[in-house]
Amino acid sequence: MAIHSTILKLTGLSESQVRERLQEISMPIDCTVSYVTVPGAVHVQLAVSAGSKSDAALAVEETAERITAALDDYVFARDDEQLNETVAALLTKRGLTMAAAESCTGGLIMKWLTDLPGSSRYFVGGVVSYSNEMKINLLGVPAQVLDSYGAVSEQTARAMAEGICRVTGASLGLGVTGIAGPDGATPGKPVGLVFIALAAGDRVWCKGHIFPGQRGGVRAGAANTALHMARRFLSAAGANKSIDTNRK
Amino acid sequence: MAIHSTILKLTGLSESQVRERLQEISMPIDCTVSYVTVPGAVHVQLAVSAGSKSDAALAVEETAERITAALDDYVFARDDEQLNETVAALLTKRGLTMAAAESCTGGLIMKWLTDLPGSSRYFVGGVVSYSNEMKINLLGVPAQVLDSYGAVSEQTARAMAEGICRVTGASLGLGVTGIAGPDGATPGKPVGLVFIALAAGDRVWCKGHIFPGQRGGVRAGAANTALHMARRFLSAAGANKSIDTNRK
Repeated sequence: MAIHSTILKLTGLSESQVRERLQEISMPIDCTVSYVTVPGAVHVQLAVSAGSKSDAALAVEETAERITAALDDYVFARDDEQLNETVAALLTKRGLTMAAAESCTGGLIMKWLTDLPGSSRYFVGGVVSYSNEMKINLLGVPAQVLDSYGAVSEQTARAMAEGICRVTGASLGLGVTGIAGPDGATPGKPVGLVFIALAAGDRVWCKGHIFPGQRGGVRAGAANTALHMARRFLSAAGANKSIDTNRK
Repeated sequence: MAIHSTILKLTGLSESQVRERLQEISMPIDCTVSYVTVPGAVHVQLAVSAGSKSDAALAVEETAERITAALDDYVFARDDEQLNETVAALLTKRGLTMAAAESCTGGLIMKWLTDLPGSSRYFVGGVVSYSNEMKINLLGVPAQVLDSYGAVSEQTARAMAEGICRVTGASLGLGVTGIAGPDGATPGKPVGLVFIALAAGDRVWCKGHIFPGQRGGVRAGAANTALHMARRFLSAAGANKSIDTNRK
């Protein structure tokens, strides 16, 4: 008998949501699944026992791929992979640069990106826009957008991502605005609600999330999700093309 | 016999520099001094054994005060005190706001300030200006300053601190520029060299430091020192007055 295991790291779902989603995915009979919640992520360990080492490894690999394919939006890393390193490698490989406009994450994404030596090759900088004035004056978010939809809205996140690209000239821009808590919730906008936008060329994608946990968990979850969004864009075949085309 | 102990946290000096400086300070006979180096700080534990609990506590207290008075530039926290909480409490008490312009620290100072719930009451935001273009376009650092003195210089740090105050309207502005390493050193500018400026009203203070350690240690040391500089300003009696006077 041999045992092989791997850890999948998911963000944007609570542990109970992850458990629920995994019930829909077929697992090998001898697979043990265990869960650990850390701030901003749920770690899922898959361990399979089989007659041989290679059989166990194959079963783990197939299961991990099934889960990753089904929960592509949420699986942001595997085992010791560091998401900031993955994004840095993809930016370098494609010769692209990145900038960020952060509200509720308060600089966490930029801190992670600049933890790495040589980050000035792909990271140009960004803005932490805690106040509405900074969103308007430094990022060019229209006051009317803030008035109509609020600072925590899809429209504001989009304008932040577009604004930081415009201001910095970066190929990719992230815009993150949300309610990290414990205060700040309003009717219809609970603690944990975060809008994350990615701008590339003249295209912008945005998604709203409700991150579980305390302030630290909401912030780390939003930062993980933002970098995961950038990673998925950069991994897609047409990443450079969509930026180049839009720039013409 | 009773033992009492305390931990002083110092930044901006290596462990051997701290040991050297403490040799100049008189210690009780039964005082054991031990050192732990962590990224960005040296922790000094003083433990005194004496006939009674109160004698031990008194001897520790007197020694800690002597060290803190002698090394005021470097002692940034004691025991479980969190420097970001101290700065936040002082800003709140004085009704002042803060902003930051970070280069080599890449958002770490802003991340620490916004780790705390309710930080939008005293923190307005800031800029991570990794490129020269961001220093010029977003912070108004004169191109001529960058050309003449370089991005890592006292002049640039001062212009960054003044710039972020001007752009955000914050009462206090921090400007941090340096070489976190492992690359980036030039003749006369070694890895670890960081200039930290504090602007308040129309006054600006700036000091150059050489932080020991790896990239993470240099960045944490610079962030600790920047917040310590803000704390010392805010603790001084005339903090509000100097800002108000300057604004007239």
